[in-house]
Amino acid sequence: MVAAAPIAVSSIDTVAEGVHFSLDTSSPADVGHKALATALSDLAAMGAAPGEALVSFVLPAGFPDEEALELARGIGVLARRTGTAVAGGDIVRGGCLTVTVAVNGWAESEYELCGRDGAQPGDLVGVTGELGAAARPEEASERHRRPEPRLEEGRALARAGATAMIDLSDGLATDAWHVARASGARLRIELARLPLAPGVAPRLAATGGDDYELMVCGPRALEDVAGITWIGEVAEGEGLELLDVAGAPVEGLSGYEH
Amino acid sequence: MVAAAPIAVSSIDTVAEGVHFSLDTSSPADVGHKALATALSDLAAMGAAPGEALVSFVLPAGFPDEEALELARGIGVLARRTGTAVAGGDIVRGGCLTVTVAVNGWAESEYELCGRDGAQPGDLVGVTGELGAAARPEEASERHRRPEPRLEEGRALARAGATAMIDLSDGLATDAWHVARASGARLRIELARLPLAPGVAPRLAATGGDDYELMVCGPRALEDVAGITWIGEVAEGEGLELLDVAGAPVEGLSGYEH
Repeated sequence: MVAAAPIAVSSIDTVAEGVHFSLDTSSPADVGHKALATALSDLAAMGAAPGEALVSFVLPAGFPDEEALELARGIGVLARRTGTAVAGGDIVRGGCLTVTVAVNGWAESEYELCGRDGAQPGDLVGVTGELGAAARPEEASERHRRPEPRLEEGRALARAGATAMIDLSDGLATDAWHVARASGARLRIELARLPLAPGVAPRLAATGGDDYELMVCGPRALEDVAGITWIGEVAEGEGLELLDVAGAPVEGLSGYEH
Repeated sequence: MVAAAPIAVSSIDTVAEGVHFSLDTSSPADVGHKALATALSDLAAMGAAPGEALVSFVLPAGFPDEEALELARGIGVLARRTGTAVAGGDIVRGGCLTVTVAVNGWAESEYELCGRDGAQPGDLVGVTGELGAAARPEEASERHRRPEPRLEEGRALARAGATAMIDLSDGLATDAWHVARASGARLRIELARLPLAPGVAPRLAATGGDDYELMVCGPRALEDVAGITWIGEVAEGEGLELLDVAGAPVEGLSGYEH
């Protein structure tokens, strides 16, 4: 294709049966949706516009052709809705159902984009949407099966001066720690301020993965361009400081000690 | 990254254990090499310069960390040699060892690139290198474990006026048929003219996959820019005409009837 803009970014994500989804609770179309959504979510966190996607399927012996087509349709529907061009692919036989999606995103200039490494003391820390919905016991939740990449929010936040951004794939505690480490700063987050999905406890919202909401650092003005809940701030120092609802440091939070 | 040139092309390829390699005969570094080589081979056939690669590993439970690192090193060595930047990746647990590589390639203009659909009556049909080496009974052959993407040859041939090009991943008979169909032309290929790897019969050279040599259509002058063996020509009509060493049409060639 003709390069859509001067700056290209790219990302690759794989979803595997038994790890990221179960065919007991997800349809083939759900799996296709999730595979593309997780890859696009990385572009969202960079503030890039979606461009092209390349898709590779590993299909186990006996996987029905019509289910493979349904899987491809799940990708196609989300691709059309987000303006992503599926530019090619590969299909191989293998031991377990696995879908890999590589995406290119585009930007007019580097200044439109956002990394994970720019958080600085004085920034606020916020998140889009609600947290924890995908981690609720009923794993078949819509949110877990069909995460929504925050493409518009990501682009708007990056252009509005976000200093660091990440998509919440591994869970807030882990992903916030990635931003803290990359930025060489200290993120201080209060569990009491988390926007909780219905029925979700703060601790689950902080550790549950697969939300694919964005965590963003930057000035308060970011709230003018996207729905954000402020959950903390960036301070001098290094690492992640999680405070429980009583304001005491959280200990023993899985996925947070590294 | 900054877009390296105005035109981007891309490709994705997956190799899976038990299908494309066996860990009985391939080292983890061989697997990494092959995964990147098969993706780069697609760029070679388009005449594009390698740009960035994204890599995704599915590692079965118990796959040793040091072997995963060796696999990554196998990718890294070929990446450095070919000027490919490994720009990102994903690692997930899953049922079987699977490596997917997505690559971006670049060109200064569309006219530098070559597709599969431009073969026209009067063109010659040629191949680089030797055929059949990867399909020899000893599957552990160097050629099978470590195919070499013909990047320099592909770029030179595309710029020198190749009308159609394809990499021989599925075997000459199948890949030539793809070009014939895409071009709406008839490819006439004589098995007697195939450049055979030592110990390989013409029929195996025509059907064995995994060679990753290039098949090219175009004017005789292409032989001035790359080592080519001419094996046939493009004629009016449609489809593929394979002639055996006695000049009679080949019947019942596996991988050729579609």
